[in-house]
Amino acid sequence: MSFTVADADWAARTRDSFSRQGLMRHLGAELTRLEPGLVEIAVAYGSHLTQQHGLFHAGTGAAIADSAGGYAGYTLYPATAAVLTVEFKLNLLAPARGHRLRAVGRVIKPGRTLTICDLEVYAEEGDKTTLTAKGLQTLIRLEGRPETEQRG
Amino acid sequence: MSFTVADADWAARTRDSFSRQGLMRHLGAELTRLEPGLVEIAVAYGSHLTQQHGLFHAGTGAAIADSAGGYAGYTLYPATAAVLTVEFKLNLLAPARGHRLRAVGRVIKPGRTLTICDLEVYAEEGDKTTLTAKGLQTLIRLEGRPETEQRG
Amino acid sequence: MSFTVADADWAARTRDSFSRQGLMRHLGAELTRLEPGLVEIAVAYGSHLTQQHGLFHAGTGAAIADSAGGYAGYTLYPATAAVLTVEFKLNLLAPARGHRLRAVGRVIKPGRTLTICDLEVYAEEGDKTTLTAKGLQTLIRLEGRPETEQRG
Amino acid sequence: MSFTVADADWAARTRDSFSRQGLMRHLGAELTRLEPGLVEIAVAYGSHLTQQHGLFHAGTGAAIADSAGGYAGYTLYPATAAVLTVEFKLNLLAPARGHRLRAVGRVIKPGRTLTICDLEVYAEEGDKTTLTAKGLQTLIRLEGRPETEQRG
Repeated sequence: MSFTVADADWAARTRDSFSRQGLMRHLGAELTRLEPGLVEIAVAYGSHLTQQHGLFHAGTGAAIADSAGGYAGYTLYPATAAVLTVEFKLNLLAPARGHRLRAVGRVIKPGRTLTICDLEVYAEEGDKTTLTAKGLQTLIRLEGRPETEQRG
Repeated sequence: MSFTVADADWAARTRDSFSRQGLMRHLGAELTRLEPGLVEIAVAYGSHLTQQHGLFHAGTGAAIADSAGGYAGYTLYPATAAVLTVEFKLNLLAPARGHRLRAVGRVIKPGRTLTICDLEVYAEEGDKTTLTAKGLQTLIRLEGRPETEQRG
Repeated sequence: MSFTVADADWAARTRDSFSRQGLMRHLGAELTRLEPGLVEIAVAYGSHLTQQHGLFHAGTGAAIADSAGGYAGYTLYPATAAVLTVEFKLNLLAPARGHRLRAVGRVIKPGRTLTICDLEVYAEEGDKTTLTAKGLQTLIRLEGRPETEQRG
Repeated sequence: MSFTVADADWAARTRDSFSRQGLMRHLGAELTRLEPGLVEIAVAYGSHLTQQHGLFHAGTGAAIADSAGGYAGYTLYPATAAVLTVEFKLNLLAPARGHRLRAVGRVIKPGRTLTICDLEVYAEEGDKTTLTAKGLQTLIRLEGRPETEQRG
């Protein structure tokens, strides 16, 4: 799918909002791919991201997947709008083992009010890449509340 | 619902496994309630847990909700079993604003192989408690792989 | 939860819209409970509602649960609005065996644009009632398109 | 993805089980595509499949999508196993308008116990095909209970 952006400044605006997500910074997450309707966010493995067996915690995957989908939708918004997640769902397909975890959010249905995204989480272990989670996400666009202003 | 545990040592076993989740430690999460079939996990607000507007990130709620549900199921397991999340879904009902975020996982259908949990996330702001997310989660029980051994 | 209706005629309006759902009629579904924010729909067992083992098909439960939730939300709408399902999720907890299947949709978060409902499906077998499915649903309110007009 | 079947008779076995789903017959559903790991089921439009606006009811889409996914998984099972849906989720992307509704279930992760499927529902209107719903489904394989025997 190919999308038309509503705001020429979409890339800088998205990077700027991402940089203000304290959780992403705390997890060491980086925005590694940025296209209209598609965002990828990755984290390098560390013991701060794990569940009880030393694998990536499902919450780590969920956090970067939620941000990836949210920003995928946000790339297509006008500059005056903010994004909120309405709901998301993740199916965990394989143990998330490796040196890096990478979430891809992709808009599958843009809309004036609601945007639907496909979410994928990949674990990279050496040369091998495994799809470890797949999900769907609904976003809502809030008008007249640009991301740069605090909601009250 | 009231449940019968399969292992007299369920509480210590659950606390022990929780203490080995690096992500929970990194987020500052605490196990604040522990009953057969019910686990509550809470985090105190900090800028390390936020999205772009300074509210709790949906990923923070998802992470503690996933652990709360996973351990709610785990309390009912025999000592020889490990728990993995199969899938979960969260509907975000209200902005997660406040000094504390608290997730409750509750078993609604225990089973030999699959366990289904109800997930709730509450934000506490002063005296007010708001249900900010509601979800459902499927867990799978892996036999012969106690949580204390590393999966390979 | 107790709700205030926006339209005094909510009950007749909801019954009327339900009566225009061809699928509900075809399945033999009846609206068995109607309160502000809560709707129950039931079907009597018949071989037209089954999966390959003669139990109620998950699609039967999903259909009546989707309508129950949709109309639960609709009871709270003004007369000028229409309802559409955005997404729903069902966890199947037990085989749906019995003489009757009954879905309850309950609003857990009403809203101007989005309404979130809890969905439950019960199978009745003799005197026994079993919760066979549990779900969550997101609805969207479409303004200026009353249910009595055809959407184009 | 390409899959290896476990039972040479997979196609006949799947068609046979499908033919015993009373709901599919009642809806007029046909099995229109059958490959290892992929099943398509379609219904022709009729007023017996509609919601209140005369469009295909979400329950119609859910019913054929659930069967399509379930049988997609079932194609890969040994002859001695039965399939049950654990959970599924559907995001409704567009109004389901047209002369035909078609659901495609596709295995994205086969497994000994659990199989995960991608679900898609398409509406065909004249020459136009619209993706009207997208979902994910978890299936469980029950051993020693072939589909041809009634569960008790």
